[in-house]
Amino acid sequence: MIKQKINSRMRAVFLLSIMFFLGVFWVTGSAIASESTDITLEQALVIVSAARERAEKKGILVNIAVVDAGANLMAFVRMDGAFLGSIDLAIKKARTSRLFNMSTGTLGGLSQPGEPLYNIEISNAGLITFPGGVPLKDKNGNIVGAIGVSGASVEDDHEAAMAGVAALK
Amino acid sequence: MIKQKINSRMRAVFLLSIMFFLGVFWVTGSAIASESTDITLEQALVIVSAARERAEKKGILVNIAVVDAGANLMAFVRMDGAFLGSIDLAIKKARTSRLFNMSTGTLGGLSQPGEPLYNIEISNAGLITFPGGVPLKDKNGNIVGAIGVSGASVEDDHEAAMAGVAALK
Amino acid sequence: MIKQKINSRMRAVFLLSIMFFLGVFWVTGSAIASESTDITLEQALVIVSAARERAEKKGILVNIAVVDAGANLMAFVRMDGAFLGSIDLAIKKARTSRLFNMSTGTLGGLSQPGEPLYNIEISNAGLITFPGGVPLKDKNGNIVGAIGVSGASVEDDHEAAMAGVAALK
Amino acid sequence: MIKQKINSRMRAVFLLSIMFFLGVFWVTGSAIASESTDITLEQALVIVSAARERAEKKGILVNIAVVDAGANLMAFVRMDGAFLGSIDLAIKKARTSRLFNMSTGTLGGLSQPGEPLYNIEISNAGLITFPGGVPLKDKNGNIVGAIGVSGASVEDDHEAAMAGVAALK
Repeated sequence: MIKQKINSRMRAVFLLSIMFFLGVFWVTGSAIASESTDITLEQALVIVSAARERAEKKGILVNIAVVDAGANLMAFVRMDGAFLGSIDLAIKKARTSRLFNMSTGTLGGLSQPGEPLYNIEISNAGLITFPGGVPLKDKNGNIVGAIGVSGASVEDDHEAAMAGVAALK
Repeated sequence: MIKQKINSRMRAVFLLSIMFFLGVFWVTGSAIASESTDITLEQALVIVSAARERAEKKGILVNIAVVDAGANLMAFVRMDGAFLGSIDLAIKKARTSRLFNMSTGTLGGLSQPGEPLYNIEISNAGLITFPGGVPLKDKNGNIVGAIGVSGASVEDDHEAAMAGVAALK
Repeated sequence: MIKQKINSRMRAVFLLSIMFFLGVFWVTGSAIASESTDITLEQALVIVSAARERAEKKGILVNIAVVDAGANLMAFVRMDGAFLGSIDLAIKKARTSRLFNMSTGTLGGLSQPGEPLYNIEISNAGLITFPGGVPLKDKNGNIVGAIGVSGASVEDDHEAAMAGVAALK
Repeated sequence: MIKQKINSRMRAVFLLSIMFFLGVFWVTGSAIASESTDITLEQALVIVSAARERAEKKGILVNIAVVDAGANLMAFVRMDGAFLGSIDLAIKKARTSRLFNMSTGTLGGLSQPGEPLYNIEISNAGLITFPGGVPLKDKNGNIVGAIGVSGASVEDDHEAAMAGVAALK
């Protein structure tokens, strides 16, 4: 019924790979969970600053949000002149990314018409599934939160978010 | 994007068939309604356990929800490490399945772009229409509730849900 | 029901005491955070069972919800015949209790007309501030989640919740 | 705490005075509006830092939000260990304060049972009317945004918010 023109075997392999790596990260995470399971405000501010610097360098105006391991807002800034409508987008991107432990763009690939997670956006009081949200991992690979960036093209948003991710050592 | 070339007459026939059988089930259901119209907590817990065992056997981490004949939450468990975003998905899958008395995947086929129930997900405070939600029937075939599973691939979610369905004798 | 004629000086002392102990618990919690910061499903199910047994012994019909340290739903059961409207109440009680690290009844005392937190219920997509929600602590005193019970009198709901709390060793 | 036995004539006078001064500020504000009508991110971050320093000095754990002249979120931080439920409270306090151009505590006095603005909290997708939200004014007295602080006693929240206000020169 759900006609899918991507060959479905390839997609299954892709999905299984994601699941596998999520599983690996999860086990790893559980094993080391005793060390650090959440982000601190200091870390969140460093992450936000790194994303903001990248945005300034690229000359884009964005909103930047960081959520913790519980998907709760930890830090947020809106650059002067950035879209007002992107406040909610940035926060929802960060939240979405942590709720499903993957980048929002990856989830968005799975939520297209005909794809396995079509219209998942309606759940969890609203998800955003285009690029700009990325999980944050500590040095052990544990997911400790997520960053969401919104205001420019989705590619630029994602790039700024990745700069934030890279700042968490 | 995913254009569906099934000819629309076939689809109409298919839909009418569904409607017819729904009608039959409805009448049947009404006739025996005096015997048992709802699930009990004991049954719900057995169903949840069966779905969970299947998930454990497959090595997947899922959220499992059971709703009663009124589509109201009856039992829920989240396996340690399962997606936080799947709490809402599992509950919405169970609810969706009971609201329309079919598996969520079946409904999802009808809600794709160009299909008869396009964007039905926006109704009822949010539906989930990809696989993982399945109606629960008593031994007389009456629908007495539904189960929703979320956290792994939609195929695996559906399989775990079916294990729950099978546990209700 | 929760009419409070406590004079305002006593209340101030009470509030300061709460803040102090919250502070103590927090520091303690942070110090030991490396050991165990969240509840497991096994623990959640033991807690739910204990609350349910108490309810059965008292002959009351309740909904029981357990949330984890991130205030996300972990386990839920509704006893046969319990109020449908209490599904949401039980979940919101558990959530409220974890969001503010105190029992819902305590928060309810502070949210009455003329009290410091009047109408706080409007926040966080809806809080429930009458008794029945209680934080869950591990053996080190860390808050690792909360339980919410709803369906009977608020006193009985609270008692059943406390039975759940006691079951977490 | 905010019990007010002020007789109702005095209250009317008080209300009219507020309205009058609001009117004055409004005209004044409009006249100079061409100069600076909004807060910048740099200013917002200075304000947040000042509120945070005060909180650290007092040993309290709070969430701090700053909204601009349009009542839209501009900056937010949550101190490690601050109530999760106060994320929404801090943002709503800042928003409420800017929406009505007065401190949330002042509005809260007017929203008590029997008072002129009873249950105003239900409006605007949820207001918070206990202390901790304060308007931000530029050097000309124009309201350019608001700050909201939540996590400690309402008096301490308000004090930290005032420290933020004082940082905007």
